[in-house]
Amino acid sequence: MSRVRVSAERLGRDLDALAQLGQDPAGGMTRLALSPADAEARASVRASMLALGMTTTHDEVGNLVGRWGPASGAAVMSGSHLDSVPRGGRYDGPLGVVGAVEAVRALAEAGFAPKRPIDVVVFTGEEGSRFGRGTIGSAAWAGDVPVADILALRDAGGVSFEHALATYADEGAPVAAARPAGSVAAFLELHIEQGGVLESKKLDIGAVTAVAGLVQFVVRVVGDFNHAGATPMDLRQDALAGAAEIVLGVERAARDLGRGAVATVGKLEVEPGAFNIIPGAAVLGIDARATEPALLDALEEAVRNLAAKVELDRPLRTQVTRRQRVAPGPLDDRVIGAVERAAAAAGLRSLRMPSGAIHDALHMANHCPSGMIFIPSSGGKSHCPDELSSLDDMARGVEVLALTLAELSA
Amino acid sequence: MSRVRVSAERLGRDLDALAQLGQDPAGGMTRLALSPADAEARASVRASMLALGMTTTHDEVGNLVGRWGPASGAAVMSGSHLDSVPRGGRYDGPLGVVGAVEAVRALAEAGFAPKRPIDVVVFTGEEGSRFGRGTIGSAAWAGDVPVADILALRDAGGVSFEHALATYADEGAPVAAARPAGSVAAFLELHIEQGGVLESKKLDIGAVTAVAGLVQFVVRVVGDFNHAGATPMDLRQDALAGAAEIVLGVERAARDLGRGAVATVGKLEVEPGAFNIIPGAAVLGIDARATEPALLDALEEAVRNLAAKVELDRPLRTQVTRRQRVAPGPLDDRVIGAVERAAAAAGLRSLRMPSGAIHDALHMANHCPSGMIFIPSSGGKSHCPDELSSLDDMARGVEVLALTLAELSA
Repeated sequence: MSRVRVSAERLGRDLDALAQLGQDPAGGMTRLALSPADAEARASVRASMLALGMTTTHDEVGNLVGRWGPASGAAVMSGSHLDSVPRGGRYDGPLGVVGAVEAVRALAEAGFAPKRPIDVVVFTGEEGSRFGRGTIGSAAWAGDVPVADILALRDAGGVSFEHALATYADEGAPVAAARPAGSVAAFLELHIEQGGVLESKKLDIGAVTAVAGLVQFVVRVVGDFNHAGATPMDLRQDALAGAAEIVLGVERAARDLGRGAVATVGKLEVEPGAFNIIPGAAVLGIDARATEPALLDALEEAVRNLAAKVELDRPLRTQVTRRQRVAPGPLDDRVIGAVERAAAAAGLRSLRMPSGAIHDALHMANHCPSGMIFIPSSGGKSHCPDELSSLDDMARGVEVLALTLAELSA
Repeated sequence: MSRVRVSAERLGRDLDALAQLGQDPAGGMTRLALSPADAEARASVRASMLALGMTTTHDEVGNLVGRWGPASGAAVMSGSHLDSVPRGGRYDGPLGVVGAVEAVRALAEAGFAPKRPIDVVVFTGEEGSRFGRGTIGSAAWAGDVPVADILALRDAGGVSFEHALATYADEGAPVAAARPAGSVAAFLELHIEQGGVLESKKLDIGAVTAVAGLVQFVVRVVGDFNHAGATPMDLRQDALAGAAEIVLGVERAARDLGRGAVATVGKLEVEPGAFNIIPGAAVLGIDARATEPALLDALEEAVRNLAAKVELDRPLRTQVTRRQRVAPGPLDDRVIGAVERAAAAAGLRSLRMPSGAIHDALHMANHCPSGMIFIPSSGGKSHCPDELSSLDDMARGVEVLALTLAELSA
């Protein structure tokens, strides 16, 4: 084949077109899973696939696949999702879909003829914003969650996933969502980093080694509310003071562990929450992530120990509830190596790095050899209207994706 | 006179009757200043005054005074307020009003003939819940706030104090709210402690030495929100972690100062407040109290130093806004001594103690020699439906009040 030439102009136009669908009047994108805007975005991508001569299929949970090259055989697949969080950004998801379509276009223009099918996938509902759980399409694909459980999910308004799907999926009979082992030879997801590592190190490409697992907790600290003026310091049962010890302890635990472990207290609600009342209760939302199960265990132990220490040190009670635990997803060495070779071939600087965020690749790693390609996020921002990556960086990522797909499908 | 006999039965009946006015369907009392329930409570107390042969007057801001004994001369006055916070308790305020009426009844029954008038006062709007500021009636009485400013206050619904007053006050022309110096010889307020000191020390009576002043702050800590998974610990600008340092520092500062200084972070709001987003901002509401101006200064300095330290130690910015500062109100030695003598005469155990909560006595202390009598609060609770004091404890407080009024008016 001749040199693969990715068109930044075409990529930018496709991303701009998607960014029109689901614009939130308050700023950013609100394109919730299976919403009319999400359906429009999916239809637009399907039209691009058909224009490229791809054949499309869809499955029981709405996943869309466009196939290029040989009609049968284990495919090399790439894709991501089109749904967003409320007031999210333009690139979290769409880059991996539009980028895969552009990669196929560039490969076709270069005269590349794959020996295996190259599939482009749009996974349904990667963000958990609407139906209370995320990575729906990839979890169903890998058989990690039964289809019946997914169809029964309901949004805050009581609309079921199954009902919403009726106005979302294509015409015609869907195929089974859970795919047979061996049907995908390799999966690759191109995504914005959503963190600030590549930008701070002035690198082009992240060759992702693993998708971090996570464990989330709700910790309720219970003391006794009392008058802030009339209650001496030694008679207080100040729940917020205990909660503050946990906030700082969670931060310290992740720092001490190192090796990519992170932990965050993102929520803290105080009851009753008035200037002149000593807090009677405080509820923390804790999120801890690591790429190794042993590190997740250590973070979990740290949270439980911090709560126990607060009970020992102060006249407070604590209640630790584990909300969810997701196992880390190690990615495939051969796919990681292919990404690195592609980056080098394109003259780009790459870094092996974990993904702290969860992606569809986490479930796909349970199904087939998988990898991810990260490109820099400006300021590490995502899930917000400020989410930004340069078109040049995105086009470089698509070039690496195209070259990796070429190697894996040759 | 013969022995002063306070009737616990009569006191309990009067308190029960008031507790019927403004019961909140959600629990507790919601009898906001100048509300229909507040007006009913006031009318009921006025009827009791008239039944005792007292003459009543009211002033420009709704304060009601019932006079017993000589028609003229500098009065010995006692009273408190009838309004409540939303879902508040039964005794914060009403005990001081009903108790003063019962004290006059008991003195009358004992054949006591005061040389000075004994006035019972119902102050308007001691709680700040409706009109955004509290101790309205006593502040006007002492001349600490101009009447015009009070009349112009508005509630959250836009109703002005002046408008609400039209359906509240008695018939007839009001007297001026700001009283001439020397018109009150001494003021005494009987109140539940609202803290747990008397209960924990198994004492009957608090002889209050000063009403603590307060200083309140809003501290805004600003970092940068980011993805909780994708952002390594060393690239974070976690506003909540900085806020947690301030929470613990505020507690430590008050403990270190001792001498009755207290400080509380009662509010803490996190933005955006999601499991998987590192907090970009956190807003703390801080309340610090002390009976000496120098201690208030020290608490204020501690808050500013803590904010500055967070800026030095972390990549965060802070903004400290002082919301209000109220000077402490030292109470009168002669009145404090009279309360102690009365307690001893009644065979009760008393303690000199400060009031951490603000009361109408704070303003009255600017106007005339003033004192307060505390009785135990069960669990130190107030401003909530669980507010509880035993009828026996309350009756003991009324007996001490009656004996103190007798000494000061003899």
